[in-house]
Amino acid sequence: MEQRISIVTLGVGDLACARAFYERLGWRGQEVEETVFFQAGAMAFVLWARGKLAADSGVADDGQGFDGVTLAQNVRSAEEVDAVVAAAAEAGATVSRPPAPTFYGGYAGVFLDPDGHAWEIAFNPGFTLTDEGALVLPRF
Amino acid sequence: MEQRISIVTLGVGDLACARAFYERLGWRGQEVEETVFFQAGAMAFVLWARGKLAADSGVADDGQGFDGVTLAQNVRSAEEVDAVVAAAAEAGATVSRPPAPTFYGGYAGVFLDPDGHAWEIAFNPGFTLTDEGALVLPRF
Repeated sequence: MEQRISIVTLGVGDLACARAFYERLGWRGQEVEETVFFQAGAMAFVLWARGKLAADSGVADDGQGFDGVTLAQNVRSAEEVDAVVAAAAEAGATVSRPPAPTFYGGYAGVFLDPDGHAWEIAFNPGFTLTDEGALVLPRF
Repeated sequence: MEQRISIVTLGVGDLACARAFYERLGWRGQEVEETVFFQAGAMAFVLWARGKLAADSGVADDGQGFDGVTLAQNVRSAEEVDAVVAAAAEAGATVSRPPAPTFYGGYAGVFLDPDGHAWEIAFNPGFTLTDEGALVLPRF
């Protein structure tokens, strides 16, 4: 697994309220399908409904372990998703969402590290991943 | 506030266990004062005891709001810490740790966004912050 983070996603209660807060701080994002994406240097910062984020991560939002925050690493192929998730499982992670095709035409899976922190490993052909591993969002 | 994240810190129950997990995945970090720092592209990924991370963030780890994950943005001066934290408060954040000098010779404060997600704003003269906003860890 490469040593980098592509996306930090915060679960939020009210997307418009959360977006407005970051925009008051000067951040500028793009909203697509009730998700707000901000380019943040070589990575992306995302706001998404907390319940959807928990469900997408394969964990219950029951106050017993879902952080309300997830990390993602984007990789270059579906095969690499499978390989990283398998390596994480071998290293002791729990696979909370086995790798599978996604609605956006990609392929992704989620594992939980030993402390329950969720990592999505994703191949998303709509996002650019540079040779240096930087994630560049499209103009949606 | 610049649109970037300098550090993602995960709270962990057993630092050695958490570090060993990421090292089994091929990550390489440095441990300093019971904290493990990994350079991850233009940012840092950090593992730290969950209770210490909550206390350092000015929030109770009572299952009622502490994510177990924090974000940080490193800035270039103590004055910039004050300015960003004040702007966040003005935009609706809760200041959970007012800006103050830190044990490592820096200056930092923490705010919670409208969903309770913690952001530390820090000036750390021991870390390099490039003109592009990339954080580069020292060799400790």
